[in-house]
Amino acid sequence: MLPRRHFLGSVAAATGVSAAGLAAGATPLAPHRPGNELVRAGNVVLFQGDSITDAHRRRKNDEPNQQDPLGRGYAWLAAAGLLVHGPEKIRVYNRGISGNKVFQLADRWQRDCLDLKPDVLSILIGVNDVWHKKNGKYDGTLEKYAGDYDALLKRTKKALPKVRLVVCEPFVLRCGAIDDSWFPEFDGYRDAAKKVAERHDATFVAFQGMFDRAVKYAPPEHWAKDGVHPSSAGAALMAQTWLDAVQGQA
Amino acid sequence: MLPRRHFLGSVAAATGVSAAGLAAGATPLAPHRPGNELVRAGNVVLFQGDSITDAHRRRKNDEPNQQDPLGRGYAWLAAAGLLVHGPEKIRVYNRGISGNKVFQLADRWQRDCLDLKPDVLSILIGVNDVWHKKNGKYDGTLEKYAGDYDALLKRTKKALPKVRLVVCEPFVLRCGAIDDSWFPEFDGYRDAAKKVAERHDATFVAFQGMFDRAVKYAPPEHWAKDGVHPSSAGAALMAQTWLDAVQGQA
Repeated sequence: MLPRRHFLGSVAAATGVSAAGLAAGATPLAPHRPGNELVRAGNVVLFQGDSITDAHRRRKNDEPNQQDPLGRGYAWLAAAGLLVHGPEKIRVYNRGISGNKVFQLADRWQRDCLDLKPDVLSILIGVNDVWHKKNGKYDGTLEKYAGDYDALLKRTKKALPKVRLVVCEPFVLRCGAIDDSWFPEFDGYRDAAKKVAERHDATFVAFQGMFDRAVKYAPPEHWAKDGVHPSSAGAALMAQTWLDAVQGQA
Repeated sequence: MLPRRHFLGSVAAATGVSAAGLAAGATPLAPHRPGNELVRAGNVVLFQGDSITDAHRRRKNDEPNQQDPLGRGYAWLAAAGLLVHGPEKIRVYNRGISGNKVFQLADRWQRDCLDLKPDVLSILIGVNDVWHKKNGKYDGTLEKYAGDYDALLKRTKKALPKVRLVVCEPFVLRCGAIDDSWFPEFDGYRDAAKKVAERHDATFVAFQGMFDRAVKYAPPEHWAKDGVHPSSAGAALMAQTWLDAVQGQA
């Protein structure tokens, strides 16, 4: 296996994502490098985040690998791909909670992350840090988001030194709740997520670049009616993109 | 690139699909072999089949690469994956028509396949050959299905000698319209599709094995309410499986 740092470099190169080029859209996938797969036989995989990850998962059922507690979003569809085609004997959990901002992940991190001892931890967080601020429910800043995110990953690596991290790029589509007033502020949050991924040697999943390309083929509303919460088609494309990334392709 | 025959052999080995083992379920994907991708820059890709492929596509719009004429099923989601992450300048079409059996593809093959000159042709056909017979609308046989399918691919290769073929396995889930009376008859149609794929050096996409595994994680109704027509989740998983296969992974 290539060193993770090298792998991350390849990810950035393959997706054309850089601090300067975040909005440039995805480029074709890099060739798959066998052995680079993040998820391996027997692993615990945990999806964390907000409503996009939560996706109406059932709270009562705590079992791994079942649709009800994995929800109906990208996390479930990526889990299904891993379970059906991926390595043997994995356990996949979803602990996304609607409305969460990054500091709210920290509040419940011991119970909802560290205690589960994930081998692979995937996080998608950030849109509420902007959205709730815009609608007056929250007074956080970009610096708080970046600082809280950095501290969360430091804490995670301290508790779980071997954890393999996946940081998903926050994204929006230009429809529904999303208007011009979101920009360029939102781009700063995407950039911060990318920087935190680099700093902690995480695989970065470039969802914004993917959706920027996808709107050439179907209107933004097809992928996410309100611009934030993916449709079934949006979730399907996210799951493909996530699987490509963790399989060393993106 | 490996010879196609070798590639097909790997597909069979990787998916654990054989005449004797069709119902055994999918095994983990083989490593991706760069250069084995069926879909290449500038290619025309055509999806053909019945309602599962059709998936409410709009007939009026004949443009490639747009959601409306590509429908809302696996073909659209696989197309989206190819368009967003795949090779440049491809054109993807869907010409599936609800209710079609294999002989009905032949009836419209000049206009709806050969005239489009596909570089990659993917076909999913067979469930209506059984279903319409069971409900008294049709008196075809397994031999007719196998013979018609073989003749269709012979005709296609004669007209388009360089076409790369993808034969998708017909599948059902055990719910809705599907009861025990479908078996073992239906298995014969799956086996015939596999044999026609081998005979014509086609990539075989093992949808039944995939769904046989998927029902461990969500009930059959989650993937296809009536046992035949995939839900959005079923279509998402089919698209992943199709993409894995054409990218040399399955």
